[in-house]
Amino acid sequence: MKYLSFRTRAGNESVGALVGDRVMDLGTRLPGDTSGLSALRRLLLEHDGNLPGAADDLLGLPGFPVSEVELLPVVTDPTKVVAAPVNYFDHKAEMNEDAHIDALGVFLKAPSSVIATGQTVKLPYVDRRFDQEGELAFVIGRTARNISADDAASYIAGYTCLLDMTMRGGEDRSTRKSFDTFSPVGPYLVTPDEVGSLSDLRLQTWVNGELRQDADISDLIWGVPALLEYVSSVMTLNAGDIVTTGTPAGVGQVGDGDSIAVEITSIGRLEATVSAQDAVKCPTLGANRGPKPPAEVTAVRQR
Amino acid sequence: MKYLSFRTRAGNESVGALVGDRVMDLGTRLPGDTSGLSALRRLLLEHDGNLPGAADDLLGLPGFPVSEVELLPVVTDPTKVVAAPVNYFDHKAEMNEDAHIDALGVFLKAPSSVIATGQTVKLPYVDRRFDQEGELAFVIGRTARNISADDAASYIAGYTCLLDMTMRGGEDRSTRKSFDTFSPVGPYLVTPDEVGSLSDLRLQTWVNGELRQDADISDLIWGVPALLEYVSSVMTLNAGDIVTTGTPAGVGQVGDGDSIAVEITSIGRLEATVSAQDAVKCPTLGANRGPKPPAEVTAVRQR
Repeated sequence: MKYLSFRTRAGNESVGALVGDRVMDLGTRLPGDTSGLSALRRLLLEHDGNLPGAADDLLGLPGFPVSEVELLPVVTDPTKVVAAPVNYFDHKAEMNEDAHIDALGVFLKAPSSVIATGQTVKLPYVDRRFDQEGELAFVIGRTARNISADDAASYIAGYTCLLDMTMRGGEDRSTRKSFDTFSPVGPYLVTPDEVGSLSDLRLQTWVNGELRQDADISDLIWGVPALLEYVSSVMTLNAGDIVTTGTPAGVGQVGDGDSIAVEITSIGRLEATVSAQDAVKCPTLGANRGPKPPAEVTAVRQR
Repeated sequence: MKYLSFRTRAGNESVGALVGDRVMDLGTRLPGDTSGLSALRRLLLEHDGNLPGAADDLLGLPGFPVSEVELLPVVTDPTKVVAAPVNYFDHKAEMNEDAHIDALGVFLKAPSSVIATGQTVKLPYVDRRFDQEGELAFVIGRTARNISADDAASYIAGYTCLLDMTMRGGEDRSTRKSFDTFSPVGPYLVTPDEVGSLSDLRLQTWVNGELRQDADISDLIWGVPALLEYVSSVMTLNAGDIVTTGTPAGVGQVGDGDSIAVEITSIGRLEATVSAQDAVKCPTLGANRGPKPPAEVTAVRQR
């Protein structure tokens, strides 16, 4: 099944299942509801991570065309967005990094940085470099603490695409990757049974229609179960938390007016446009420090 | 006024005002309430950041002795804990750091790491060094985005003490500082009018009764208004978010059985004990990388 967070025509936030090209509304959050949980997080909590499926007579619900709804970020209010810093060897090589995830652990992106597919990534500064990093992400279904890799699957509500927008330089990763709009995520939450074997998945990222990243998910250094085991050994994960697995080779600079697309087999296509309209001079001095990305966009490797 | 999050004798989470040594209950979150907002965050949202004060007839409310309640973290569910990496020159010197906050920006700690005063910091690993870092923190009262330093005061609900527990080494800061229990915060949220001038505040940190850190808040490189201006230029801050201002010189190793106290003038005393009872071998290899703390606990500087 595919699930989506969306805004109804009446302007309310809701969560739905996608059946064909129709959205089945599973629960609306009413205006004035300041209770604090998104429709999706509430649904995950109410069902202990097991979202209602086709067997729950979804097909009998009243639906409406997906083209008529405004998509929201798959999770509008994760309590955490956890990310893997260097989790493909080809990206480690292009960045001239001497360490990868098994030395670096993970970092956090601000939950306030998530946006939906089709929205605009707003570059904050005129005088800094910003890169696209396409990634496979997963969403936690229920509270996870000290989970073993063998048990990881039952804690994952589903998978989605995430664009880990990144400022280059010496600022802490949390800063460089947490600007508002720097985590496009979507378009849908796709359940593990529909995704199938992760080792069959291919991730591709385009900028202005030109292919920049083309990777096999099987090339992850720490695969999804190992990553969830590690993250849950560091911190308690909550329903709706997002864990993103890292980016492969092919990162490169983007600027005002660029269009970016991240596509993963069985999961879907996430799109974003880039704007530097409100960019100002950067107030921090980290420009000549930090990881060194390739100077030019490199050719896509042969798969 | 001083505010506190606490568990009632009936086991519910609530928020109260401290009047003398009595707690005035301002709103209980009932059992089975899965709505997702803590009592304090709901109160901040309902009052647009202006918590009810003595003028609101708090003194007429039924109260009970503070000694009878179980204190919770000042905010149990911040959407973000934002932290300053190197924001005192004497700490920059002791760490042999060649950069400070104006190059590094800020980092994020996991909200799941917050605990209350009097609780236990649980060290995760047997083979790594962990240090205490006492800090002044503030809590956001209402949504803050692109706030100028001049307007900062009206976005701050109050101040509190925070113990930024830290693993040394080359892992990303978010990992080294986000283990569950690594952010003791409290004991109270103290409103700006009661705190008075920040430049008069003194921060002291003790380990087993021995003074390790003794600093003037006026020595912050980026003071509170400048820090809030910067953080709100990077990311949207929400009511209940915690921003912690960084630690002065005097960080040092702590281990199983140690007791830590952080005290700030006008704000209060935050206490924690340390346990390594459930520690295991560290699964990441960052031990020989990263910032270099002083090998020994150094003498407290003369003030």
